[in-house]
Amino acid sequence: MTKSEKVLRIGLAGAGVVGQGLLKFLAQRPDFAPAGATVVVTGVSARNRERQREVDLSDLVWFDDPVELAMSDSNDVFIELIGGSEGPARTAVEAALSLGKPVITANKALLAVHGHDLAVLAESTGAALLFEAAVMGGTPAVKMLREGLVGDDVSRVAGILNGTCNFILSEMEASELSFDVVLADAQARGFAEADPTTDIGGFDAGHKIALLGALAFGGAPDFSTAEIEGIDQVELLDIRLARQLGFRIKLIAQATREGRLASVRVNPALVPLSHPLAQAGGSLNALFIEGDRIGRIFLQGPGAGAGPTAAAVAADIADLLTGARRPVFQKPARLLARLSPADHAHRKTAAYIRLLVADKPGVIAAVTDALAKAGLSIDSFLQRSVQDTGLVPIVLTTQPALESSVDEAIEHIAALDVVIERPRMIRIAQI
Amino acid sequence: MTKSEKVLRIGLAGAGVVGQGLLKFLAQRPDFAPAGATVVVTGVSARNRERQREVDLSDLVWFDDPVELAMSDSNDVFIELIGGSEGPARTAVEAALSLGKPVITANKALLAVHGHDLAVLAESTGAALLFEAAVMGGTPAVKMLREGLVGDDVSRVAGILNGTCNFILSEMEASELSFDVVLADAQARGFAEADPTTDIGGFDAGHKIALLGALAFGGAPDFSTAEIEGIDQVELLDIRLARQLGFRIKLIAQATREGRLASVRVNPALVPLSHPLAQAGGSLNALFIEGDRIGRIFLQGPGAGAGPTAAAVAADIADLLTGARRPVFQKPARLLARLSPADHAHRKTAAYIRLLVADKPGVIAAVTDALAKAGLSIDSFLQRSVQDTGLVPIVLTTQPALESSVDEAIEHIAALDVVIERPRMIRIAQI
Repeated sequence: MTKSEKVLRIGLAGAGVVGQGLLKFLAQRPDFAPAGATVVVTGVSARNRERQREVDLSDLVWFDDPVELAMSDSNDVFIELIGGSEGPARTAVEAALSLGKPVITANKALLAVHGHDLAVLAESTGAALLFEAAVMGGTPAVKMLREGLVGDDVSRVAGILNGTCNFILSEMEASELSFDVVLADAQARGFAEADPTTDIGGFDAGHKIALLGALAFGGAPDFSTAEIEGIDQVELLDIRLARQLGFRIKLIAQATREGRLASVRVNPALVPLSHPLAQAGGSLNALFIEGDRIGRIFLQGPGAGAGPTAAAVAADIADLLTGARRPVFQKPARLLARLSPADHAHRKTAAYIRLLVADKPGVIAAVTDALAKAGLSIDSFLQRSVQDTGLVPIVLTTQPALESSVDEAIEHIAALDVVIERPRMIRIAQI
Repeated sequence: MTKSEKVLRIGLAGAGVVGQGLLKFLAQRPDFAPAGATVVVTGVSARNRERQREVDLSDLVWFDDPVELAMSDSNDVFIELIGGSEGPARTAVEAALSLGKPVITANKALLAVHGHDLAVLAESTGAALLFEAAVMGGTPAVKMLREGLVGDDVSRVAGILNGTCNFILSEMEASELSFDVVLADAQARGFAEADPTTDIGGFDAGHKIALLGALAFGGAPDFSTAEIEGIDQVELLDIRLARQLGFRIKLIAQATREGRLASVRVNPALVPLSHPLAQAGGSLNALFIEGDRIGRIFLQGPGAGAGPTAAAVAADIADLLTGARRPVFQKPARLLARLSPADHAHRKTAAYIRLLVADKPGVIAAVTDALAKAGLSIDSFLQRSVQDTGLVPIVLTTQPALESSVDEAIEHIAALDVVIERPRMIRIAQI
């Protein structure tokens, strides 16, 4: 690409935490010269030019419009750290790729939603599109699935992909505080965004698992078919009760393939305390990969932060300089598998169900009868002492059963006169 | 390389477990066409043509001499699965690289011993030299360190890299049988070689950690400076006592960098039961990677077997077809860091020490005095009941101290009249 001059000129759009991390890395590591080329940032674009930053941008050519930066001849590679599936990030990435200019991005939303179209575009102009920083920060999960495991048929990827949610759940358990209190504290400390919806709603983990599933299965990402449930309904009470039953509640993202069907989903789930995913606390990310030949691989590391994420962007820069010609996802866009969403009613799950019932004779019989009618077997049953109000909290876990049967049982139970509030169901992870 | 014809012709040297695994993979996956090229094995070489195999080799051109296969125009890539740092494997790999022919190998011994020379040779002719299958089977540790983490300064890699040793240690604990009995059983079941020295002597893990350390630190592998201790001296008694103290004994391979110094070593070590490395049982492999920016990454997977290892070879084939031009190790051979071996006497370790002493007054005082003289602080002390023989077994663990102090303390203790046999010291892992 720049073989003759041996300088790679970068246009950087987005000078937030990760962008500044990258500038710092390049300043600290003047010897970072993959394949002999020197890496130099020549132009930058960000929302606010005046904002106080840890790095000095005054030597760089400023672009008010990231699209102009993406199209400028003054750089050889466009690095997009703006974020968001639409707007300037999308327009700028499309503009660079249209010109055949390589793009490096950390934008999981953009790729999860428009990945297939962008792959078609990139492959039509021969531009590379790299996104190691989009998932698990500096832990190279993207490279592992796109390149390291192509000699296998991967059937499942599952894990913890959102550090903010993992931090909040860990804090709730450690501090015995409610979701709202812990979230407000995380926001105050800068661990959660002012508008936390993308994280706590499970959407960020959904974008990431849609991407990883696509890489794992040789398909195109399709965020529109993902089933997403966040952690905003997780109560401290459930964290405590799960703990008593030997579980920890985690936000689990998973993508599973069965033949031409794939399911991509994110939901809070109970994980046995001894399981590696239960032990990944704080803002750690963790991932299981299951394949026919490789068996089970486990990968864990910091999921975010300036250092790790900038390291992932730098790895993409190095990759670009090898001149590797590879498709954006595991296969060329025209060969990507068309995977239909699996019908969730046919999926099996074990369930944790929490009830509040009136303290009347025959209540337990009524509840267990409702479960039996739906074909559910009870795995454990925990009746708490009667409250002052005359109400009895009950927690039970079921054996794995069809999700449709679990839904049916919940409806039966909710319809009982003695049941005071809608039962709370949380899946038990089968990992 | 074969862009016009779209066929990649492979010469395969070695038709053992991994070679047959690769042939099976290619037979099962006719769609395995990375970058559009079809992969075909055209020639094969192995020690014994007549041996019964799970795959049919009769359609392939047979070469008695792997060097001839390596030099033959009938293939575009030479895959070396013979093994061994010298002899036909080395000669054949050198022959292929000299011609500028790409080589894929699973041979950790060859690379750990001659890696630098081979990198110089490969880079002089422009031939690729890939070796994902050399370490951790199908778990892409090589790709992770060579490519995924180049945007960081990795200071340490440490873990469990020999599946046979891990299997034997796990079996000793589970079955309460001695090393010799478990090894004989593992040999009978095909989990250990007839001559097990390479595995149980720690040499295989040493080759692997020398390679991973080189990739991690941007240096050349240098097996000659590795300190190697195997598991053949691990007694069931120590496994039991360690367990009582809250530890499990594992064969730990680690490479550590401090400035221009690096240490590479393999030794049995006590790992706390709750540590992920203690929980990697059976023939699993596991690895921690620590870097300035990325923090700590943990990677675990099956370390061997036909399926995983063949998947790693296939991933290298796919990599080759991207046309990526990258150095053999993390940097071009001429730029590889020259790292001197660190002086082990300046290294710190905590130690487990097991003694057998005579049941006489003042014995404990004499032992603790010897420890104090060497500057060692005791962390835990376990005196077992007096044996019929009038001898008292003592087990103690120390706080971290200079290895030279630990050596000195052992000498002091061994010299005491009341100490019946040479004390047994096993390091406590600082991971």
